[in-house]
Amino acid sequence: MTKNSNEKNLRERIHEIIFGTDTFLGAAFDVLLLIAIVLSIVVISMESVEGIGWRSGVVNGENVKLFGQGNAGTILHTAKWFFTILFTLEYVMRIYCVKRPMKYVTSFWGIIDLLSFLPDYILMLGASSFGFGVIRSLRLVRVFRIFKLGWFQFEAEDLSNAIWRARAKIIVFLTVVMILVTVTGTLMFEIENALMKDESLFKSIPDGIYWAIVTMTTVGFGDIVPKTVPGKFLSAFLILVGYSLIIVPTGFVTAEVLDSKRRKQRGILSCSSCLKEGHDKDAAYCKHCGEII
Amino acid sequence: MTKNSNEKNLRERIHEIIFGTDTFLGAAFDVLLLIAIVLSIVVISMESVEGIGWRSGVVNGENVKLFGQGNAGTILHTAKWFFTILFTLEYVMRIYCVKRPMKYVTSFWGIIDLLSFLPDYILMLGASSFGFGVIRSLRLVRVFRIFKLGWFQFEAEDLSNAIWRARAKIIVFLTVVMILVTVTGTLMFEIENALMKDESLFKSIPDGIYWAIVTMTTVGFGDIVPKTVPGKFLSAFLILVGYSLIIVPTGFVTAEVLDSKRRKQRGILSCSSCLKEGHDKDAAYCKHCGEII
Amino acid sequence: MTKNSNEKNLRERIHEIIFGTDTFLGAAFDVLLLIAIVLSIVVISMESVEGIGWRSGVVNGENVKLFGQGNAGTILHTAKWFFTILFTLEYVMRIYCVKRPMKYVTSFWGIIDLLSFLPDYILMLGASSFGFGVIRSLRLVRVFRIFKLGWFQFEAEDLSNAIWRARAKIIVFLTVVMILVTVTGTLMFEIENALMKDESLFKSIPDGIYWAIVTMTTVGFGDIVPKTVPGKFLSAFLILVGYSLIIVPTGFVTAEVLDSKRRKQRGILSCSSCLKEGHDKDAAYCKHCGEII
Amino acid sequence: MTKNSNEKNLRERIHEIIFGTDTFLGAAFDVLLLIAIVLSIVVISMESVEGIGWRSGVVNGENVKLFGQGNAGTILHTAKWFFTILFTLEYVMRIYCVKRPMKYVTSFWGIIDLLSFLPDYILMLGASSFGFGVIRSLRLVRVFRIFKLGWFQFEAEDLSNAIWRARAKIIVFLTVVMILVTVTGTLMFEIENALMKDESLFKSIPDGIYWAIVTMTTVGFGDIVPKTVPGKFLSAFLILVGYSLIIVPTGFVTAEVLDSKRRKQRGILSCSSCLKEGHDKDAAYCKHCGEII
Repeated sequence: MTKNSNEKNLRERIHEIIFGTDTFLGAAFDVLLLIAIVLSIVVISMESVEGIGWRSGVVNGENVKLFGQGNAGTILHTAKWFFTILFTLEYVMRIYCVKRPMKYVTSFWGIIDLLSFLPDYILMLGASSFGFGVIRSLRLVRVFRIFKLGWFQFEAEDLSNAIWRARAKIIVFLTVVMILVTVTGTLMFEIENALMKDESLFKSIPDGIYWAIVTMTTVGFGDIVPKTVPGKFLSAFLILVGYSLIIVPTGFVTAEVLDSKRRKQRGILSCSSCLKEGHDKDAAYCKHCGEII
Repeated sequence: MTKNSNEKNLRERIHEIIFGTDTFLGAAFDVLLLIAIVLSIVVISMESVEGIGWRSGVVNGENVKLFGQGNAGTILHTAKWFFTILFTLEYVMRIYCVKRPMKYVTSFWGIIDLLSFLPDYILMLGASSFGFGVIRSLRLVRVFRIFKLGWFQFEAEDLSNAIWRARAKIIVFLTVVMILVTVTGTLMFEIENALMKDESLFKSIPDGIYWAIVTMTTVGFGDIVPKTVPGKFLSAFLILVGYSLIIVPTGFVTAEVLDSKRRKQRGILSCSSCLKEGHDKDAAYCKHCGEII
Repeated sequence: MTKNSNEKNLRERIHEIIFGTDTFLGAAFDVLLLIAIVLSIVVISMESVEGIGWRSGVVNGENVKLFGQGNAGTILHTAKWFFTILFTLEYVMRIYCVKRPMKYVTSFWGIIDLLSFLPDYILMLGASSFGFGVIRSLRLVRVFRIFKLGWFQFEAEDLSNAIWRARAKIIVFLTVVMILVTVTGTLMFEIENALMKDESLFKSIPDGIYWAIVTMTTVGFGDIVPKTVPGKFLSAFLILVGYSLIIVPTGFVTAEVLDSKRRKQRGILSCSSCLKEGHDKDAAYCKHCGEII
Repeated sequence: MTKNSNEKNLRERIHEIIFGTDTFLGAAFDVLLLIAIVLSIVVISMESVEGIGWRSGVVNGENVKLFGQGNAGTILHTAKWFFTILFTLEYVMRIYCVKRPMKYVTSFWGIIDLLSFLPDYILMLGASSFGFGVIRSLRLVRVFRIFKLGWFQFEAEDLSNAIWRARAKIIVFLTVVMILVTVTGTLMFEIENALMKDESLFKSIPDGIYWAIVTMTTVGFGDIVPKTVPGKFLSAFLILVGYSLIIVPTGFVTAEVLDSKRRKQRGILSCSSCLKEGHDKDAAYCKHCGEII
């Protein structure tokens, strides 16, 4: 690449920094963007903490949350706008340097990038009452942008391939789990209601199913628990089934991982997009779907 | 298949749609049935929610649940009968098109199919006081019908084979768990009762065993917890044993899965019904039990 | 074996039934003993339940538990003595038919067998006040006798071998866990006490370590939880470490299981007692320790 | 080694006992040190327990903790100083017998060893008010010294190698977990606050993220739980994702362990420091980094 500064080359250079990962500046941009995303998430989080981001106050005789008036209100406010403007600039830069801006703007990552800063401008315009929470929470989609970072994409490939290959097994497994929790949750609701009447913690069938999911997966919040002897028996049964069942899909995913590892060592290339095999050893693109192998 | 509409061929066509999965209509029927089962479960669940399916009311000076009088009472009532009649029609169709109806009616799936709609008719006849909950909860067995769907059966085979092959190990594992929870639960009951008297949360040995199951499997509801120092020591011991023990059967199931995967790749056929091996490469039926391989 | 009924042969026959598993009577004895053990555990458990085994009463103006006066008091009392006499007879039979009775009596299983019925006789003699609970809970050791059953011993061998081979890794793993919970539990105690004073749920360092074990193993009772922001940070850190760490020993045990499976398939015999290898293919006894392979 | 007792040889002998593990005295020193570390941790823990290490008292009309005045105050005080002096002596011995004392003193283990006893002397000098807790908790770093023991280092190598090889996968896995908990935790905070107002248990976004970590990893304390229907739906979704996700990295670590096991069996040496391979079969030192293989 020549170093003359006509516009075409400037765009190419910016493109290399923003989208590339091979050059020093490209790698540095990725790292700085990662730090900016994480810090902006911290700022959004801190804004929601009482005393730091807001304080209780009385307006017209009503208790309200006074946002931006906590101890660190000013710092958080400044930081929030710093990141909002940063992400806006980055978005403009991306549009400027890509060859087909409309394709980027309408792409999944283009919308994620736009949603990283747009809500702040909308909230500034005074949309404070209607849909306040919805718009505010939209900002957090920016955390998904970490998935775009070069290193992450590279390393995550094996993991997502393993999940993709084992998807049928995982769906079957979750179906069995769903059927079990539906049956057990409903039974539990009927049992506890028949024996405990109004003192039952199981208020409805959805409550029972929620309890069964929380129990079978060994989360066990303890907000809903059986109080009757048959209920405890059913609970113990569900727990032991859940405890025994989790080991089965583990075996399948492990087998998939071992299999793909062995393929790699033996030089059997498989496309990471369509998962088809049988490519030549020096193939760079998949002969089935055209993606880089 | 010819398209003339004499009765024999109509029965064959219906049979193909209801029991088959290869034709477009057969596959569509499976998908629609899946949606119907899931939606009917949602309807049954919603019926049990206060405000949606029922509301509190006073009849003859007593507080009672007025079923069908919640906000969505009419919709749920209509939907319930829609699905009840749908499953009735499907049941009649199945009997009509199978060659040996009595074999189907008395089979496991025939009974499940019958129980999918029969309880609603019984409840309509006024069996509201005696065994109300039992009959109502019988309806939920329809969720098991998901297991009959073609795709599910095909994909679930590997999973159930893996569990079947590892069954002895899983039984031994669960036996060790049961012995450990019996001993620890009883000890815990004696310790906590000796030191805490009436303040102990462990009211009986079954309570202690229930606590031990909940604890060793890392569910940890927190409704029963040790309060004494020796109790906490025993609790920590049981937790660490449970934490170390779960990894052992995982290894065995993984080994089974890898083994069957390797067999398949090497072309060693094994029957999915009787698990015997040594079949010819082009065998379509097991030479030991006659089932399709 | 001849069928003449002189005493020597009677002893041999009883020995075959009690200790053997190959004949029909030997296998039946194992199954009946298993049922007797499980039922006797159920009886002991039921005795501890209020209303079933005992009821509250007032003796000399004090609230006491009246054992044996619950609803099922008489049945449980009869069942208890039935099993006590059954296990006594079995013990006498075992002493009668073994060649070296003293070796059996002083062996581990001999003591377990003795403890299965002795406590009931001691309690009958009126040891009700001193060490009541301790003696009573001794009876539950009979559950360990399940380990002696033929089928169980055979199937459990692979599992215990896998644990034995991976013992060093499991000890290292548990050591890392113990160090982590000691450090985190102590830090948690200091943090929560410094910030919350008397409101802290962490009353002492052992409390903190107990919390850390409960948390890191994902049990999460919820009886002790951090209330401060630094405490919650430390808690989240410990949880994520625990969540990541459990996968490591799983891998090692799986590797051990696969390894021993492959050895068997390749015909490499390894002794199940001393785990040494290199035996001839037709070897029946280990050439290192003399045990049956 | 000759047995003449000039100073140089005395230092060598002490060095052999303290740092070596091959001789009987060297192994015995390791075991005794392990016991001393564990016992000293027990003493520190016991000091924090009410009634054992301290009792409540009133000084100048204020409730204070009277340290060292519990039932076992004197014993604990004596034991504490016994271990403090022991570790001091050991530290002096180590400085005396190593060839380059300054390198040891400024090394990681040198600082850990110093921190094992220094805080006790500082606390004795009366730093009781300022930074009392911080200095006291510094003493617990002595538990890390278990990592220095010879046997432990040897056995832990495989485990740490497996983690090291799978580090990229574990980081990606934890990143996915972190992104999921950030998004779910924030959504949960917004949902519960919109529907429950002040009754919501989710007081801020960090609270929501803390809940999401506790839930997704199946810890489930139950101190923060969703109370609304949409919240419970989101909760069930997060739990099922967490339950399905944990099986993926397990597969990768297992694959790494199997791989390194197979390498060893085939005689492919890999350096445990730099993980590079391709060494000669009789190589004792890594040709890349010079460490002992």
